[in-house]
Amino acid sequence: MHAYRSHTCGDLTAAHAGETVRLSGWVHRVRDHGGVLFVDLRDHYGMTQVLADSDSPAFAAMDKLRAETVVRIDGRVKLRDASLVNAKLPTGEIEVYATEIEVLGPADELPLPVFGDQEYPEETRLAYRFLDLRRESLHNNIMLRSQVVRSIRNRMWDGGFTEFQTPIITASSPEGARDFLVPSRLHPGKFYALPQAPQQFKQLIMVAGFDRYFQIAPCFRDEDPRADRSPTDFYQLDLEMSFVEQEDVFAAIQPVIQGLFEEFGGGRPVDADWPRIPYAEALLKYGSDKPDLRNPIEMQVVSDHFRGSGFGIFAKLLEQEGTEVRAIPAPGGGSRKFADRMNAFAQREGLPGMGYIFWRSTVPNLEELGYEQLSERGDAYEMHAFMQAQERREAWLAAHGETYEAAGPIAKALGHEKTEAIRKQLGLGIGDAAFFLGGRPEQFETVAGRARNEIGRALGLTRENQFKFAWIVDFPMYEKTDDGRIDFSHNPFSMPQGGLEALNGDPLRVKGYQYDLACNGYELISGAIRNHKPEIMFKAFELAGYPASEVEKRFGGMVKAFRYGAPPHGGCAAGIDRIVMLLADEVNIRQVIMFPMNQRAEDLMMGAPSEPTNEQLRELRLRVLPKE
Amino acid sequence: MHAYRSHTCGDLTAAHAGETVRLSGWVHRVRDHGGVLFVDLRDHYGMTQVLADSDSPAFAAMDKLRAETVVRIDGRVKLRDASLVNAKLPTGEIEVYATEIEVLGPADELPLPVFGDQEYPEETRLAYRFLDLRRESLHNNIMLRSQVVRSIRNRMWDGGFTEFQTPIITASSPEGARDFLVPSRLHPGKFYALPQAPQQFKQLIMVAGFDRYFQIAPCFRDEDPRADRSPTDFYQLDLEMSFVEQEDVFAAIQPVIQGLFEEFGGGRPVDADWPRIPYAEALLKYGSDKPDLRNPIEMQVVSDHFRGSGFGIFAKLLEQEGTEVRAIPAPGGGSRKFADRMNAFAQREGLPGMGYIFWRSTVPNLEELGYEQLSERGDAYEMHAFMQAQERREAWLAAHGETYEAAGPIAKALGHEKTEAIRKQLGLGIGDAAFFLGGRPEQFETVAGRARNEIGRALGLTRENQFKFAWIVDFPMYEKTDDGRIDFSHNPFSMPQGGLEALNGDPLRVKGYQYDLACNGYELISGAIRNHKPEIMFKAFELAGYPASEVEKRFGGMVKAFRYGAPPHGGCAAGIDRIVMLLADEVNIRQVIMFPMNQRAEDLMMGAPSEPTNEQLRELRLRVLPKE
Repeated sequence: MHAYRSHTCGDLTAAHAGETVRLSGWVHRVRDHGGVLFVDLRDHYGMTQVLADSDSPAFAAMDKLRAETVVRIDGRVKLRDASLVNAKLPTGEIEVYATEIEVLGPADELPLPVFGDQEYPEETRLAYRFLDLRRESLHNNIMLRSQVVRSIRNRMWDGGFTEFQTPIITASSPEGARDFLVPSRLHPGKFYALPQAPQQFKQLIMVAGFDRYFQIAPCFRDEDPRADRSPTDFYQLDLEMSFVEQEDVFAAIQPVIQGLFEEFGGGRPVDADWPRIPYAEALLKYGSDKPDLRNPIEMQVVSDHFRGSGFGIFAKLLEQEGTEVRAIPAPGGGSRKFADRMNAFAQREGLPGMGYIFWRSTVPNLEELGYEQLSERGDAYEMHAFMQAQERREAWLAAHGETYEAAGPIAKALGHEKTEAIRKQLGLGIGDAAFFLGGRPEQFETVAGRARNEIGRALGLTRENQFKFAWIVDFPMYEKTDDGRIDFSHNPFSMPQGGLEALNGDPLRVKGYQYDLACNGYELISGAIRNHKPEIMFKAFELAGYPASEVEKRFGGMVKAFRYGAPPHGGCAAGIDRIVMLLADEVNIRQVIMFPMNQRAEDLMMGAPSEPTNEQLRELRLRVLPKE
Repeated sequence: MHAYRSHTCGDLTAAHAGETVRLSGWVHRVRDHGGVLFVDLRDHYGMTQVLADSDSPAFAAMDKLRAETVVRIDGRVKLRDASLVNAKLPTGEIEVYATEIEVLGPADELPLPVFGDQEYPEETRLAYRFLDLRRESLHNNIMLRSQVVRSIRNRMWDGGFTEFQTPIITASSPEGARDFLVPSRLHPGKFYALPQAPQQFKQLIMVAGFDRYFQIAPCFRDEDPRADRSPTDFYQLDLEMSFVEQEDVFAAIQPVIQGLFEEFGGGRPVDADWPRIPYAEALLKYGSDKPDLRNPIEMQVVSDHFRGSGFGIFAKLLEQEGTEVRAIPAPGGGSRKFADRMNAFAQREGLPGMGYIFWRSTVPNLEELGYEQLSERGDAYEMHAFMQAQERREAWLAAHGETYEAAGPIAKALGHEKTEAIRKQLGLGIGDAAFFLGGRPEQFETVAGRARNEIGRALGLTRENQFKFAWIVDFPMYEKTDDGRIDFSHNPFSMPQGGLEALNGDPLRVKGYQYDLACNGYELISGAIRNHKPEIMFKAFELAGYPASEVEKRFGGMVKAFRYGAPPHGGCAAGIDRIVMLLADEVNIRQVIMFPMNQRAEDLMMGAPSEPTNEQLRELRLRVLPKE
């Protein structure tokens, strides 16, 4: 027999009854049922119930077992009594009567239990990650991640893509974050950089004549910590294609992502219709370039109703150029209570408050029409009063119609006509509300987007448990920085729409062939059709204030390559962590990474980072300077 | 129609005749056949012949095309004349008559041609890697590599393994080379290390309760350059399993490797019988722990024949303890000329020479027995002379037998009896030779191994064009260093055979559960059953001179984990580059890597490593010291 196991802990069923078996695994739990000891023996594959009574030669050894000890157990497979069958467990029909136990790996007192659901501080969990990983939910997340990556790879291969590995110790490939540097021992004083993404390499692969490249690529960004982001390295699905336009990239990646979410989404519906939403429209309607389309609310511009109106704050505001008033419709939010709730939200966001109108019925209710419910009676007298009141209500409705009023200070200041025009524009009615934000859109759009999220959630409008996608397109190439300069707003390597000609006009009006995929409020993918023409690239960088010499210095390898026959090409990259988080329904990135750093970019288990030796520093010709 | 192509350059066949098509690709070659221009248009998928005559509106544009320009070509598919069909090309039945040409990516004068087989200096090839990669053989190698990696993954998944990614920016995980360090910005003065291999992480994955892990893992070693090794990062197939013994690991990996070589070996036979050869036996028989078994030569110890013999050099040598004389049989090498050749080899290796014996026949030949071939005649007279000589030879043989003599100074010094004993032991005969090396085996084994290779190659004994594998097992745990200390000879994490008890004896006699896979003279895989018991680990390190405090400091995370229920586990790692090199029949590692460093660990295309900015150094609190 094998030294450690004839079966795994997930193998045994009624078909094995009577067999002598050998299992190895971790002692998940020991229970003493009055002279009979039960051990739940756990391995990667499952759990098997093992028992010993005082007749068993293994009894004494079992009695001493501590949780998480690794043991080998020999025994006989027994059918459980019908009443004791555990249908939830694949091995639930049987148990193993132990005849011999050998401790393979003893366990000290645990700093973190594996059995049970107690919460433990994250620092403890990270320091004892090897214990935390034994817990079922984390184990399942990590297995899910692995399956997801496998499935991505297969889907990409099926789509005619080929995976290539690009260098890790290389030159800087900036993506807007800081590089991690690696000092060179052979060239002291010089440094390699770890790639923030394989951007330049994948473009070079296209120039090198390959096509449809992908890679599950390690990326490295020295970023300040954030809960939903790894502070050091992470993986992305990186892809690039030659001789393509934007829609070709969409057509290549949609089946991969959609299939993935259908495969691993746990049955949650996956929308197959992925609208293309221009960046400007996304900000207007959703207050975000990664809108959550599970929320049906779409904001609208309502400036005209406020211009020169009696609502002085907005009327005055609108006299300044570049300002707007936008409304967030809130179907079903038509109550003072909800308006107060949103006001509180606005104050948490640092606003003085949020203007609103809500519409309530002015039809008299039955009580107002004489009916008084007397819950204790419910007799013929009461029935009569009820019917009378109803009659009166019908008569009232026939005379006056379904009357309503717009409540709130804005409605009062605007007057009936304008308020009504707003209601009609937004398609709202009795029981609904609208919230208003005004100013320069770029200053309130983000808050507006968060208000939209809040309203959708609070009113139950956002249909959870589904996946809705949209391509956000037509990103602007440039933006004005706080100090008034023109800079790239996103990826400097994107092809500007309209090419060189467009760059000769107003830079702030130039859009790029650049796109993001939004899913449930997250950015899942980012990509672009690349700028493969050196003259357009130099011009694009020049507009952002980078002279040709700087472009040559920073991207010389790629620019040089573009001079020797570069194909039109484009692609995108998808964050693996984000995809797994969505599928696993987790909000903490450390729940989907095997060995994550903590938020201070430390590995508490392995003790990284740590002090170098003097010998190492000497070889690298480096000195660490004292703190200033 | 699509902006760039209706078909790829590998798509069109006779079935498309008459269709209007759009192709995009690189101008591989332009030929002018007297008023008709031919362009071989190339993309990732293939090559299509495009032509234009002076009637074509595309003629003028085509006439200006430079090699490697990227173009879009519209045209009509025409069948070629039967006499012009190119059966070697999938598109060889057709050509495309061009009606329109658009330049998508112009090409400057090329520093390195793509068409043709000219050799170029490697530095040029690396600086213009994107051009070099367009060449067919390199393109094919890179595609092969990708297919190999894909196949490995599928085979591992099919074997029940799961791929997990382990951290890249992490703590030191020493494998005997230098670490690459990464200075931490958030913790100035502290450094991360890039893993030399995911050794500790994969062991922690086992302790965390997973099983059958694998990873195509990036590894980082700051090693001094060597032709067959990447000076920075490389990939290995890394795997680990729980509850296994050595043979379980062999059983898991053999089908993967064997299947891979069968799939991609180009029909070269792949041996299915993988012998287990103890390390000591491998060194004795083959002079190497990665023997090339395509070479049938096995060395033998022949000390007894020389002890106290008339061959003074060896006789005297053997009086010293620890010395041996070993013979390399050379079937078919029995000539003075071959002995001289091997002597020259020995001198190139820095030895004064190599002792030999060869055996030659002393049966008189037909000439000596009176027959003289007169090639001009061939008549009855000559035939008569020939038959007479043959008769004489038979009579001689009947009288004396198949006589032979042993030639060379050693044979003379040893005398007939000992020489004959050696011949019998080695199973040699007329026309064969044996070469001898004496001394301390560890001092001559490597040269002996190289001599064996040389003999096998020179005599045509080594059967090229096949793959032969062997597991080398029972590696010693320790070795004596030059300064007389005891140190680990291979992997310090291996389980010593015999456990703690064995460590209490002579360390130099302790073998580890450690193994390598040799293939055609290369080490393809290295692995071990791990030491999962802290007390044995501390003892093992103590023997090598590392106090417990040092073990805790360097491997604290792993040692800690072993205290909380560690399963017996083991695994191995296989070098991807080496596998692809063997399959692609390449000897230069840069022929199987997309973007390799040069031998000085520089990326000439991207300009790495490079000077950091002052800002970067300041953030890291580092100063570069001036050259001493």
